[in-house]
Formats: sequence, C-alpha cells, structure tokens
Amino acid sequence: MKAEAKNEKGNGGNTPFTWVGKRVRRIDGPEKVTGELKYMTDYQYEDMVWGKVLRAKYPHARIKEIHVEKAKSLPGVIAVLTHKDIPGFNGFGIVVPDQPVLCSDVVRCTGDAVALVAAETSEIAEQALGLVDVEYELLEVVSDPEKAMGKTSPQLHPDGNIHSHVKIKNGNVEDAFQEADLIIENTFYSPRQMHAFIETEGGWGKMDEEGFITIKCPGQYAYRDRMQIARALAYNPERIRVISSPIGGAFGGKDEITVQIYLALLAMHTNGRPVKIHYSREESVVAGMKRHPFKVQMKTAVKKDGTLLANRVRAVGDTGAYASLGGAVIALAIEHSCGPYKIPNVDLEGFCVYTNNGIAGAFRGFGVNQVCMAIETHMDMIAEKLGIDPVEIRKKNVYHQGEVSSMGHVVKSSVGTHKTLEVAENCDLWKNREKYKAEASEPWKKRGVSLATSFHGIGMGIGLPDYGAASIELLPEGKFKVAVGCEEIGGGNSTVYAQVAAEMLKCDISNIVVVQGDTSQTLDGGTVTASRSTYTGGRAVATAAPNMVSLLTETAAEMTGVVMEKIEWLPNRIVAAGETISYKRLFDYLYEHRRKTKVEGHFMLPKEKEEIKGSGGAPHHLYGYLTHVVMVEVDTLTGETDVLRVVSIPDAGKVINPQGLEGQTEGGAVMGIGYTLFEDVLIEGGYHKTRNFTDYIIPTIRETPIIETFPVEEAEESGPFGAKGIGEVVMIPIIAAIMSAIYDATGARIKHLPATPERIYNAIKQLKEQEAQPAR
Amino acid sequence: MKAEAKNEKGNGGNTPFTWVGKRVRRIDGPEKVTGELKYMTDYQYEDMVWGKVLRAKYPHARIKEIHVEKAKSLPGVIAVLTHKDIPGFNGFGIVVPDQPVLCSDVVRCTGDAVALVAAETSEIAEQALGLVDVEYELLEVVSDPEKAMGKTSPQLHPDGNIHSHVKIKNGNVEDAFQEADLIIENTFYSPRQMHAFIETEGGWGKMDEEGFITIKCPGQYAYRDRMQIARALAYNPERIRVISSPIGGAFGGKDEITVQIYLALLAMHTNGRPVKIHYSREESVVAGMKRHPFKVQMKTAVKKDGTLLANRVRAVGDTGAYASLGGAVIALAIEHSCGPYKIPNVDLEGFCVYTNNGIAGAFRGFGVNQVCMAIETHMDMIAEKLGIDPVEIRKKNVYHQGEVSSMGHVVKSSVGTHKTLEVAENCDLWKNREKYKAEASEPWKKRGVSLATSFHGIGMGIGLPDYGAASIELLPEGKFKVAVGCEEIGGGNSTVYAQVAAEMLKCDISNIVVVQGDTSQTLDGGTVTASRSTYTGGRAVATAAPNMVSLLTETAAEMTGVVMEKIEWLPNRIVAAGETISYKRLFDYLYEHRRKTKVEGHFMLPKEKEEIKGSGGAPHHLYGYLTHVVMVEVDTLTGETDVLRVVSIPDAGKVINPQGLEGQTEGGAVMGIGYTLFEDVLIEGGYHKTRNFTDYIIPTIRETPIIETFPVEEAEESGPFGAKGIGEVVMIPIIAAIMSAIYDATGARIKHLPATPERIYNAIKQLKEQEAQPAR
Repeated sequence: MKAEAKNEKGNGGNTPFTWVGKRVRRIDGPEKVTGELKYMTDYQYEDMVWGKVLRAKYPHARIKEIHVEKAKSLPGVIAVLTHKDIPGFNGFGIVVPDQPVLCSDVVRCTGDAVALVAAETSEIAEQALGLVDVEYELLEVVSDPEKAMGKTSPQLHPDGNIHSHVKIKNGNVEDAFQEADLIIENTFYSPRQMHAFIETEGGWGKMDEEGFITIKCPGQYAYRDRMQIARALAYNPERIRVISSPIGGAFGGKDEITVQIYLALLAMHTNGRPVKIHYSREESVVAGMKRHPFKVQMKTAVKKDGTLLANRVRAVGDTGAYASLGGAVIALAIEHSCGPYKIPNVDLEGFCVYTNNGIAGAFRGFGVNQVCMAIETHMDMIAEKLGIDPVEIRKKNVYHQGEVSSMGHVVKSSVGTHKTLEVAENCDLWKNREKYKAEASEPWKKRGVSLATSFHGIGMGIGLPDYGAASIELLPEGKFKVAVGCEEIGGGNSTVYAQVAAEMLKCDISNIVVVQGDTSQTLDGGTVTASRSTYTGGRAVATAAPNMVSLLTETAAEMTGVVMEKIEWLPNRIVAAGETISYKRLFDYLYEHRRKTKVEGHFMLPKEKEEIKGSGGAPHHLYGYLTHVVMVEVDTLTGETDVLRVVSIPDAGKVINPQGLEGQTEGGAVMGIGYTLFEDVLIEGGYHKTRNFTDYIIPTIRETPIIETFPVEEAEESGPFGAKGIGEVVMIPIIAAIMSAIYDATGARIKHLPATPERIYNAIKQLKEQEAQPAR
Repeated sequence: MKAEAKNEKGNGGNTPFTWVGKRVRRIDGPEKVTGELKYMTDYQYEDMVWGKVLRAKYPHARIKEIHVEKAKSLPGVIAVLTHKDIPGFNGFGIVVPDQPVLCSDVVRCTGDAVALVAAETSEIAEQALGLVDVEYELLEVVSDPEKAMGKTSPQLHPDGNIHSHVKIKNGNVEDAFQEADLIIENTFYSPRQMHAFIETEGGWGKMDEEGFITIKCPGQYAYRDRMQIARALAYNPERIRVISSPIGGAFGGKDEITVQIYLALLAMHTNGRPVKIHYSREESVVAGMKRHPFKVQMKTAVKKDGTLLANRVRAVGDTGAYASLGGAVIALAIEHSCGPYKIPNVDLEGFCVYTNNGIAGAFRGFGVNQVCMAIETHMDMIAEKLGIDPVEIRKKNVYHQGEVSSMGHVVKSSVGTHKTLEVAENCDLWKNREKYKAEASEPWKKRGVSLATSFHGIGMGIGLPDYGAASIELLPEGKFKVAVGCEEIGGGNSTVYAQVAAEMLKCDISNIVVVQGDTSQTLDGGTVTASRSTYTGGRAVATAAPNMVSLLTETAAEMTGVVMEKIEWLPNRIVAAGETISYKRLFDYLYEHRRKTKVEGHFMLPKEKEEIKGSGGAPHHLYGYLTHVVMVEVDTLTGETDVLRVVSIPDAGKVINPQGLEGQTEGGAVMGIGYTLFEDVLIEGGYHKTRNFTDYIIPTIRETPIIETFPVEEAEESGPFGAKGIGEVVMIPIIAAIMSAIYDATGARIKHLPATPERIYNAIKQLKEQEAQPAR
C-alpha cells in the first residue's frame, strides 16, 4: 500500500478523487458560523483568577526600583510578580531570546511587561496595576531606524542596534548600470500593519496539585511555545501541556510567545486556580507584534528590449525593541526583492534594526509585501518608458522551472508565474479594461486597471528545521483520529487533513476526527507559518495513512485467514473474501492482541543543498506564485480610492479544497487592500498614536470588492496530491497592482504606503502644479 | 499510600529498611567486572562504516578553501562532509552554541573539526583525512588568558575574549582589611586535568529507511544531546533516538556533545549502514574537554582570635576556544571561593576567558577544586600564624544550618561541616598524627599530616531547569521497569534507583529492571552532573512508587471485591483477604480492562528565591560537605611524594548504599591525588605537548593509599530517604590537604599544581637557600 501512496503524490488531479480537489465544506465551519464554538478566551470559570500585565510607562528608561507592597496588600490581590519571581531564564524570542519576560533593568518600548498581577476580579487586577510603583530614569528614545544604525545612537542591545544584516551579490551591477539603456531608481516606504485578529492575545493557565501545568492559549506552534515556557520557568517541558488551537485569527501575530509565559508564571502562584489573561484591544495594539515598516531603495537597470539587467536594493526594516523573527523577515525580503525574475546582476542588502517603536514580528507575507511593491512598481515604470506591454515585460523576464533565479540558483520545483500571467491577460477585466475604465461613476472619479505578480517561499529556508509529523489512530468506536501538530489558525488546514486522510483511507470524511495543536495529543510538526501547513502537514498525513492501511490490511488477513492480496478496501469498510470487517472490529482485535492501533507519518521538507552566501537562509526549495489584476476608482477631489474588482490567479499546485483556496485569496486580497490604502500603526517618539480600531481603519464589507479566483494548478511532485502552499502570496502582488492602478487612473505614483486620501490628493495636486509649470 | 511516601523522605535511617542504607551489591556490577557487558564502542557490525574527523592543523587560522575531491574519489570512501553539508545550525554548546560542528571560516584550536569522512575501513577513512586539502591563513595565537583579556589581543569570538564575568560583593572589604590583625595574600595556579575515562569518545549512528535516526553514544544527558543534534540537523527531534548509557567513564567530560552530531550527519549519508566513530586516545586528548586551568589571587583578613573578616578573590579560568560550561564553572568557583565559612566582607570576581588552548568544560568538582585549594591553604597559614589548631579555626568559622554564608544568604538545607570536622579530629590518623609522622620509611623521607574541608552545590543554580522524572511500569511478566533519564555513568545510581523502588514497592531488588538514558524509554530527567542524580532521580522514583502502589492496591481491590484498606502489601506479593495476587495477574487484569500499567513521578529541585547579584546562578539550595585528612611522605632528595593514608568524612545526607558511597569517596580521593601531584595537559602556543598516557600520569594501584570513609549522615528533608549528593566534593578538599601535608612534612608551600617532584624539590631547595641566608 505504500507504493500506492507514492503514486498519489504529485498527481495533478487526473485521478478521480472522492475528497481531494472537491469543494468540501469546512469541518470547522458549522460551529464557527453558528457561534457554537467557544474560543479559548470565551471561557469563564467559577474559581477563576484574572491576570493582568503592567506595561512600561516610557518607551526607553532605566528601572531603578519596583515597589509592589501596596499592590500586594490590596484586598483581592492574589499575586504580584516581577522579574525576581522568574525561576528560569528571563527572556523569550523565537530566534534570539532578547525580549525580557518581565523587565529588570531597562524598558525598551511601551509594550514591555514590568509586572504581573493576579486578582479575584479584572477590576481589582487593574487597580493593583496602578499601585505598582516603578521608579524610572528616562533614556533617549531611538525612533528612526536609519539614525539607530549610526554610532552616536543609544544602543538598545549589547551587540548594537543592527540585529541582522543580509547581503547578496551576483554578477556585477556597476558594469550593468553602465551598459543599461534605462535605469529606474526610487525609494519606497511601507506601513506598520496590525494583524487585527478579532480575538486579541489571551488564554488560560492552570497548575494541578502534582505540578503539571496546562496552558490553553491560541498560538501558532505549541511545541515551541512549550520550550519557551519551560526555559523561563526552568521547568521540565514534559510537565507542561500547551493547547494552542482553536484561534480567533493569528496571521503571524501569534507565532511568537504572547501570554503563555505570563500564564504559566501566574499559575504557579494561584493555588491551582485557573488564571486568565485577555488583552484589551489597546493593550494588543501597544504590546502585540506588528508588521515591520520598511524603507526600500531600489535601482533597476534594463535593456531597450525590456530584458532586466541589474537590480540594486537596500532595505531597512524597523523591528522595534526586540528581534522576534525580524532577522528572518529581512532575509526573506531580500530573497524576494527581485521578484520572480531572472536578473543576472544583483547587489542586495538588508538591515533589521532595533528602535523603541513597539515590537515587530511575523506577519502574512513576511517581508515580501514590502519589496514586491518596489520591484513591481519598477516593472510598470520600465514597461511604460520602453513602451512594452506590462504583461509582456513580465513574461519576458520570469524564470521557469529549471532556470536560474535572480538569487543565482536553479529553481527545481514547480513554477507557475508564466501561466498565471497568461490567465491574467486573458481574463475579462484585463482584456476589457478600457471599457471598464470608461464606466467611472462620477466625472471627477477616475478608474485604473493594473496587474502585478509575485511569489513567496514555502517553508523555512536553509538551516532551519522544517518537518511535518502526523499520527493516525484507530479509535475504539472505529473512527480515525488524525492528529497534526499544526494548528487550525483559520486557513482551513483541518479540512485539508481530513480530506487527505479520508481519500487515502477510503472512508467518509465524517469518520475522521482531526486534532491539532496540543502537545499531549499531537506530534511536533513545526509552526503554522510560511505557507507550509497544507504542504507539510498534508504530506505527513499522506505518509501516515498508508501505514494505517497496511496495519489494518494485515490485521484483517490475520483475523480471517484470507491472504493479504485479497483484502479489499471498499468505501467505509474492509472486505475479506466477501466478509465485511468493520473498523470497530479491527480495533477490538488489535487491542485484544496487545498491538498498537496508532501509526505515524513524518515528512522532511526538501531543501536546496547550498545556502546563498550572506542570505541568512535562502533559497527556498519551493515557492507559491500569484498574479493579481485590480481595478480602482479614485475620487480626484478627495483622493479617496475604492478597489472595485480583483482577479486573483494563484499557483498553489494541486488545489485540495477549492473553497479553502478561495477563502485564502479573498481574505488575502482584502488584507492587501487594507495595507495599501488604510492601515498604519503610528508611533511618535516611541508612543503609539494609533491605539484602537477607532483610528486604525481596516476594510469592511463596504471596501470589499468583487474577487474572482482562477487557480493555475502547477502540481508539485513533493506535495500531498501535488499541493503547494498559498497562505501568504495571496496578499502580496495586489499591493503593487493597486499602486499602479492609482497611477493608471490619475498619473500620480504613490511610493509611500498607505496610499491614504491625503497622500493621493497631494500627489495629484503636485502633478497638476508640475504640469502647470512651463517646460524647462 | 502517598502519605507513606511522604513519611519516608527525610527519615534519617531510623526505620529498619530492607534495601535502603544496606550494602547492596551494584546491579550493574557483575557484568562489568566479568567483562560480559559490551560498552557501545565495543560493538562491530558486518555492514558497518567507519567515521573519522579531520582536525584543524593550526590552533588559530582562517580557512580559505577546503578541497574534498581527492578524498571523495578514494576507493572505499562513502562520504566526505564539510560545513556545507550541515542542514541546520552549525554550532553546539550547552549554554552558548559557539562551537562549530564543522568549522567554516576560522579554526580556534587544534581540536576543531573541519571535515568528516565515512569509509569502508578505519584505514581508508584515515587515508581520506590525509587527502582533504585545507588552505589556511595563519592567525596570531592567543595562549595567555590574562593577555587575552586585554584590548590588543586578537578577539576569538564576536563579543570578545571574556566569555563571562562574575562579581559578588558583600560588606566592605577595604574597611575590613584596615581593621584586620592578619592578612594573608597569595596567588595559586591549577592544572588542565584530563578526565582520563577508559572509554574514549565514540559511538554509533544509524538512519533507518523511514528516516528515523538512532544515536548510541555514551553521554550524560540524552535529551539535551538530542536537542543539539536536532538543531544542527534541522531535524524533528521526535525522529531522533539517543541512547546514552552505558558509559565507560565520563566525569563531566561527556556532558557536552562529543561525537553525537558527527554520527547523525554521517548516518544521513551511508544508505542506512551503521557508522561508528571512536577516538584514539590522542584524538581524545586534543579534541576532548578538559578541566579549566585557573589562576586564583586571594587576600584573606582575620582577627587575632581566628575570626574570618574578609576575603578578596580574583579568579581567571581558561576555557580554551569555546564556552561549553565555562561560564557556569567560573560562577560555581566564585560561589565556593570562601569555603563553607561565614565571612562578612567579600569582594569576589571571576573571569572565564577564551584562548586557543584546546577546549575546557565540565569536570567533577566544576571550578570548586581550583578555589578550595586557595581558601584551605589560607586557613592553614592563618592557623599557623595565629597559633590556633587547624580544626578549631575551621570549627569557629563554618556556618551551620540557618546561618548566613559568605554569599550573604541563609543556608536552609542540612549542613554537616561541623560534624565532619568533629569526626576528623577524633579519627586515628589525626589524633595519632605525631606518632605516624615519626614512622617515615627512610631518614630523607619526611611525613606530614593535614586536613581540609569543603562543600559543593547540588544541582543547578538559580535560573536553570532542575527536575527529576521517572516512570515505573508493570511489565507483563510481573516485574517493575524503573525508567530514569539520568544515565548510569559509573557512580552507581542504577543501584540506588533499584533500592528506592524495591523498598517502596516492597519487592525483591531482582524484580526491578532499571532502564536509563534513552529518549525512547525514559522521561527527561536532566543531566547526570552537579552531584544531582541520586538526589533528583532518586526522589523522582520515590514519587512514582506510591502511584504504582495506589494503582495496584485499587486494582487488587477491584479484582477481589475486598475493600482497599484490607489490601496488604507483603514482600513480593499483594494479599487481599488471604488471597495472594501476583504482579503478573495484576498486569493481565489491567491490560484486559484497557487501563494504564505505567505511572510517573516528577520532582522539582527546591531552589532559593533570590539570586545573588552578579553571581551567575548562586546560591544553591543544597550542598554536600566533606572533610579529608591525609598523610603524605615526601622524598626530600627527589621531591617525589606518596599519599599514604586518606580519611574521607562525607556529609551526603542519608547514605542509600554504603558500598556505592565508598566507591565515590575512594575514586574521588584517587582523582584528587592525581590532580594534586601528577596531572596536567600541557599546551604551548596552542599545541598539545601532552598527547597520551605515555606522558600524562594518572594514579595507579601503586599510588592508591589506604582510604577510610566515615560518613556523617545529616539527613536532608527534601532528598529520597534523606539523601543528598556527593559525586564531586569527594575529590575536592584532599587537594588542599595534600598541599598542606607537604608543607607539614617539608616546610615548603606549593601554590602551583600539580605538585610534581620538580616543583617540590625546587621549593625545598629555595627554602634551604633562604634559611642559609643571614637574617636581615
């Protein structure tokens, strides 16, 4: 049966499948849309205790003394903890644990935690926070990343303010700039986007009488969270259970530790009572992770015929007070800074820099959003100057499978860019764009249509662990429990896992029970980020399933005396020489004979052999590709912009659940619209000016356009049934496409996002002033 | 039944136990003394492959290029790997992973690994090493730790050559020095001792067809080794099994990664064939860990009546090219640098410094050896100058339970120093020392008798995880499988675990099967270092056992319908209202009813609440104490010294196995003799002058004196049956005692170890020359 599983991977959908490739209703859908599902922060218990976090008063200050006596003596207060109460290592961080759990000497942003309180009620806890008296000595605030890199800036960490530096060089850009027919050079700025998940950071901690700690906290990687908790608590990780699913939205913002360590610390002081923390929206804005704002300087050289010759990029990302995944974000940005093109000469450099501006970390797109807007704007500017069609210039420069990318490596995995561009140029919106543009709703409103393409690495880069693991267990009642470490963070991977298992076990999807993100029930299968969970977790399930088939086939043969070759797997049952054997009977037989009823499947993500020098983890083995076509309408009197139509053309390999894919393309497009037009968390001098949804605008149904999805299924040999990943690239090219569509509509190029009405209005005004001036 | 377990801890041996406190024959003894046991490096397999490591040619050089083509093309070579073949993070190290698995840019000592070879035979592998061509550019060698700390020295690591700096200050030493009646000030040097385990570093690696990797490699912490392997391989740790027991000697030298990562890397390239690495003695000398050589400057102030007033210490430890546990070693040295005394004013400072002198790491005593020799020599010098008896001056200054130590913290756990000193002054050797001293074997041989006392922290310090875990499983045949993460590294903990389990389960010790150090069979229970495994692992077994008693009592009641209170635990059986129920019957019943047959026991080592500022992890909650009395005979013509008699008076709490304790006190004393008189790995300009046992002398049976052990059983409430730990302090005070006994015999004070015949001869000669000079 193992051979059969092999045949099934990389099969581009030619076999008639029962579950795979079908519009299967999400298995987590009904309880989510009916509201029946309780998210973890929805729970309340009789004997519960409220936990709260005291935040730093200043963005940069030395702590002289922390007085907790008053807070402790407030009736109803159960515990007040400071750095002195941390039994283990006072720090966390996925790559470098540079963020204190509770600050001891210095605070570096107003999101920094200084003390924890547990109390009988939320109100008492809040009051107690006010009674913790922290003496500070103010320090100079570092707010400009470029200045932070200078020697005269205050240094926020022992090794200086440059957390990481990535540098990739190929060919000779100087010579290429000499030979070029056209050079385009611009500087782009991108915003500090908020994840804006509906469920803010929160969860539960409880320690039982034997000292076992259970943390129920929505997160993106239970095993790694457990490791970080254990390190801070100096506690045996085997005595900590982390349950990290379900989650009311994450998007990368719950990949790092949020409240898990606070919960565990408090749980050690509440005499076995469960403790809950749940951030208010304001606390989430100030203390939670954000997307790295970038400054990207790009200089691109091209031949007359549109062939890309050279690209020079310098990107500076503001990671705020702590690294989290900032180093990886800048590395991914640089890896993707030349787009899915083959540019022979590149000189690419990125810096991830510490400042006192909050904290930045993982976020859907992971650095690629910030550079795609630059390279794709350049592609359009080049096309215009050279008089080449924007689709043609892209098709001319994209790499195909087996070709050398701008990173200098041969791309061996499937590449769908060219196909997505072909679909784009033949879609209704693009073909009939002149007609649609002429249909603006008011005379002072102008329409523009544009497109952009991008790609996104799937999985971790070189040098990082990247594995999937799943188990399938036959339960006493005859159902199959499919347990996967990867959490369901809303992307629909639970349904994918059920589809893969049902397909391979030839049973109804209702016979599959999916369990995710629980260190006591699931194997370590890596994090739900990097567009990896369908691909990696799905492949792990597809590796476990044949083991279950073998086990039950052998068992049925042994039970009946029929030879294994004659055991048939029919829908929902196994038949041996005419005799139907239920799954339940198989379980009873196995148990009685002291045999295992559980099998495992493991999968190592294939990797490139050689790391690109200086790249910090590039290249990826596998990428997802996507082209967006958009139409906007700009109110030239106010600068207000509507996105009216979006066409999303993903290459996600074989699509396992079209409904799930559309959920991603639609959600991603809307998030991209918000990023391009509205969203930015403003911080001035280290203080948040933006503090809530009252002044942070995200797209609502009013701003959501018609979104069409036309997948290009470029099957990937290594993926489950040929699937790749898509979770991130769905929000990327739309950014540049909207920017270019605004230009198409108004003639104004926006290089500083978000493209707010003010920025667009001013750009149009400036344009008019320039036009009014006599030519020099 | 849980209450019963509680009663049993901290019980100082008043209850008549069946197994605990008895001279139980080591359960691992017979197969070890008969040679029946195969150590892991003893195995050979038909299809095996030999692995070898290419070491750096120079102690400090830049790698320009590594050419492996010739080596790869040698017939019989299966793989040649360099840093480029490391899928994950190229580094290891328990605290800071600063040691490359395979060097890529710089080599920092001649033990550095540059390439790995796998070949059909050991000879071919050796030949292939010679064909790997590494181009180097020589760099200036850093060999003096004091110079390494200066700004003009080449910097070996990004953060400079000072790996760690510990500084503890209490009271006011300057004022105390002003007020003192006597001040003693000296500088001491200690050697680079070799662990000299009989089984050098080695082991096996194998990857099966499903990608599961098994590493069989003698080590001291299988779970941590697995983590370090997984990090380097970027591999799911759940797919790596590490078996780390049995071990042919460790003593701290196998606490860090030795060959585990090399084995795993090679195993990925041998098509499923098992690969073996086994260092020659020379390779072990050059590449293995050693004890940190120290320079200790000490200035001690005292009142006329012998009351210690102040101590100033500056210690510099040479950690060689990499940190490993160097930071912890210097921290422990400083914590113990004032001895088990209460000195109100202290100013203590320690530096752990990088050089190109090999690599230093964990070693029995862990920094305390190097400072005990200083403070105890000072105690004797003070006693002599003030005319106070050496026992009296110690008894006057030692802290008792509940008193404040020199660290400024109240010692809450049991303290046996005073009792050990009382036993010392009443022992035959001390009481009749003048008589024994007069019995020298030749007129030119002089005898001296002296004593010294010391202590050693048990377990990790503050901020580090410190937990024990054990499981007990009822096996189908009715035996109990006791599984403990802590390895049997020769100290006898396997017998201790069996004794504790047999005692509490009321069965014969032959009914206990002990399994240790195997990530697939044992829970993570921490490392076998820091004198912690009897205490921590024993307590974990003692916590698991009552859970097994409960389980079987309940089961017997259910089986028979007899009420639980009437279920009797008699030796080797359970009796319910007269009916004997065998363990086997209990197993069958539990299995049939789908119940668990395994229980767990967990234990967190109690810790102090507050860390001493600047101490890097002090204080410990618990210490073991020990006083040594020794008699030496010095040949004044050659300087050659024999240790003739040793009395070892340990306070290990309740002694679980007197035979095991004696194994420790005897082995420790002999190791201390070697350290004091013979052993030193000489390195000049980064090159090892000492390379084998031909020029590294360790004590043999000829140098082994009569060793008497008189334990003081100061029961520790938190330990299993009142036990503490003893593995390290057994080798510590003997060092200072021998140094003082040489003085007693000859009048020559040796402050630079080892006290070789040359050093003693020269010291005696210098003394005679001084005496010959007319008094000025």
